[in-house]
Amino acid sequence: MLRERILKKVNAELGDTIKIKKGRRTYEGILMPHHEFSGDDIVIIKLKNGYNVGIEISEDTSIEVLKKGSKEKREIKRSIPHDPKEPTISIIGTGGTIASYVDYRTGAVHPATSAEELAFSVPDIFDICNVNARVAFQMFSEDLTVDHWQILAKEIAKEFNKNRVAGVVIPHGTDTMGYTSAALSFMLKNLTGPVVLVGAQRSSDRPSSDASRNLLDAALVASKSDIGEVVVVMHGEISDSFSTIHRGTKVRKLHTSRRDAFQTVNDAPLGKVSDGVIELNHEYRRISNGTIEVDEKMEKDVALVYFYPGMPPEDIPDKKGIVLMGTGLGHISKSLFSRIKELRENGSTIVMTSQCIFGRINMNVYSTGRDLLKLGVIPGEDMLPETAYVKLMWVLAHAKNQEEIRKLMLTNIAGEISERTIYND
Amino acid sequence: MLRERILKKVNAELGDTIKIKKGRRTYEGILMPHHEFSGDDIVIIKLKNGYNVGIEISEDTSIEVLKKGSKEKREIKRSIPHDPKEPTISIIGTGGTIASYVDYRTGAVHPATSAEELAFSVPDIFDICNVNARVAFQMFSEDLTVDHWQILAKEIAKEFNKNRVAGVVIPHGTDTMGYTSAALSFMLKNLTGPVVLVGAQRSSDRPSSDASRNLLDAALVASKSDIGEVVVVMHGEISDSFSTIHRGTKVRKLHTSRRDAFQTVNDAPLGKVSDGVIELNHEYRRISNGTIEVDEKMEKDVALVYFYPGMPPEDIPDKKGIVLMGTGLGHISKSLFSRIKELRENGSTIVMTSQCIFGRINMNVYSTGRDLLKLGVIPGEDMLPETAYVKLMWVLAHAKNQEEIRKLMLTNIAGEISERTIYND
Repeated sequence: MLRERILKKVNAELGDTIKIKKGRRTYEGILMPHHEFSGDDIVIIKLKNGYNVGIEISEDTSIEVLKKGSKEKREIKRSIPHDPKEPTISIIGTGGTIASYVDYRTGAVHPATSAEELAFSVPDIFDICNVNARVAFQMFSEDLTVDHWQILAKEIAKEFNKNRVAGVVIPHGTDTMGYTSAALSFMLKNLTGPVVLVGAQRSSDRPSSDASRNLLDAALVASKSDIGEVVVVMHGEISDSFSTIHRGTKVRKLHTSRRDAFQTVNDAPLGKVSDGVIELNHEYRRISNGTIEVDEKMEKDVALVYFYPGMPPEDIPDKKGIVLMGTGLGHISKSLFSRIKELRENGSTIVMTSQCIFGRINMNVYSTGRDLLKLGVIPGEDMLPETAYVKLMWVLAHAKNQEEIRKLMLTNIAGEISERTIYND
Repeated sequence: MLRERILKKVNAELGDTIKIKKGRRTYEGILMPHHEFSGDDIVIIKLKNGYNVGIEISEDTSIEVLKKGSKEKREIKRSIPHDPKEPTISIIGTGGTIASYVDYRTGAVHPATSAEELAFSVPDIFDICNVNARVAFQMFSEDLTVDHWQILAKEIAKEFNKNRVAGVVIPHGTDTMGYTSAALSFMLKNLTGPVVLVGAQRSSDRPSSDASRNLLDAALVASKSDIGEVVVVMHGEISDSFSTIHRGTKVRKLHTSRRDAFQTVNDAPLGKVSDGVIELNHEYRRISNGTIEVDEKMEKDVALVYFYPGMPPEDIPDKKGIVLMGTGLGHISKSLFSRIKELRENGSTIVMTSQCIFGRINMNVYSTGRDLLKLGVIPGEDMLPETAYVKLMWVLAHAKNQEEIRKLMLTNIAGEISERTIYND
């Protein structure tokens, strides 16, 4: 509580320009709000160059208020611009790091629960399009389940079918964004505008935040592109130079912290956004006319199971559907074959994907694979394991019998299976 | 059996130069052995350019023997060269694609069960070093378990301690090579020479096989380098230009079929081999003097568990040790916290790694991570999930109590934890 005490002593309020003296060094900037992610003795200020820094303070740190923040400016910004010549998008918040918007002036970190608040936080978005914003839920993405995917699918369809928006942006925690984007890809048919999931790897109070860049590029894709698919827009490389547009069924978080953590796997991305220009250089589904159909039924009794050497049979649970992450081209140990047989006899569907992440399943090369095929295991082609998991939930809720399940799993429904793996030589 | 019948009819034997006429096309080359991986109607010949091709034959394919293969040449090659000025290595076979050696002349695919057979299959190896070769087991690597790792560790130590070899090469199936290399890294102390695991992504009867290039480079590292660690040597890129030397605890198969599937994760590789020259450009442990110590005790009651949205608590099994593959910086859903608590109360050790594969665990950033830390979950730093799994087996068999388990899991023992993740910006 040192921070609070020292700030209170000099009556420093959020938005004030302050000077911090720490030893021989001084820092000047606008006082930003404290954030639950920062340490307790960190004061965050926005420097003149626009970057935020966190400064560790101690008892002998001196702080001085140079200029009080203006409250009037805030109020003016609360009237949202609306340009009838520009398209309108809906932003449906779900939580996650990106939901912690930072006010450019005061630096206030707050969830955008309304268009007003969004205007206040990332005003540049109004140079791109008109915005409706609301929050569906505020959760860490690791807590989202199939129920949330279903709610989102219906909310998105409503925005298009009822509110006739040009596109929808879904700010989302990055941890499970790939699962959600895959789920929405299967649930939403005949999209009349782009559905763009977007996240941030670094929260807005961090100097290196990617939140506003990603959101602006996502808004651009949602309002100005003719992509009739569910996509993810995230930083394309570690600097701020461009964002990448990923197909929702082919994208995976491949780094815990880098801003370019999201990558398209076993395919090329749909395109990119740089300097406000959308470049599309991959086949994609164009937007449709008419009405979006929501087909959100899912079988919940499905598991994603990672094989490891020495795995005992009982570690493969009883489920209606199991997506295995096997080794290499699609293998598990022979010691598990009787368990697979048992599950198959009980009517379970088993799909093979690879823990290699990259590359295609090919169960015809080695006898292990061929034996598993004989047991009725379905090869997952070049699908991401996470996408195969979501797809199996969807397929089990839609197919009438084993043959249809198999056929649907091997059919490319939403871009999840590529014709051939372009990374193969 | 069409193939066998047609070949028999013209008395075509392995090693013979034959001509195949198929429609308007003709192919000339040395008849190679049929391989269990190839289709039943495929005849494999080695073309003049050194590449193998598989040709699909039918009833109306005509085959002609142009020249019988020489049996004398084979016999000459059976006397193995031994150069007392060169170092001697041991090759201990375990199975896998690389174990299907191809004779350069006859194209015979066979496991190298002796130095004679090896001489016969990859004779260039004798320009590098002297070779003892034998087979420990012949298995698909997905069937290997901790028992096999323990046998291998003891066999390797014997080669060094008793037979005083300069290095050991372990041909291994690629599917679980990363698990084995990690296990040996923890089990073998005070290495007096390099231990080099090597595999092939394409079997020797395929034109694009990487088997002999990888084996030659592995033999070079084993006989001529001063690396006192367990390493993996595999193709560095899709062409044949160089091999990469990976640390055994940091390497992962990241593609189902590419020849450069193996990558060092969250660190730089130790070095590379190009044109017969070893370049080491990373810190590594030098070989020791004296005797290798084998410390192969492992706790088998450990599981590697992949989190997915909607995972029910009962899908985390009862084990002494569990390595979780969580999302992002190290998260799982709150709905699993009570299960984690229960496991902890029963004395289980739980280690968190990330399904992102790349990057470091940081459970201090979000409340989910902090809550899990409070429940006693151990952050897996930047360890590969597979390495963390193997390490936990080793640690649980060596630590006396919870504090020691925790300390060992957070201590860098065999290069498995990097000081910082170099891919982070």
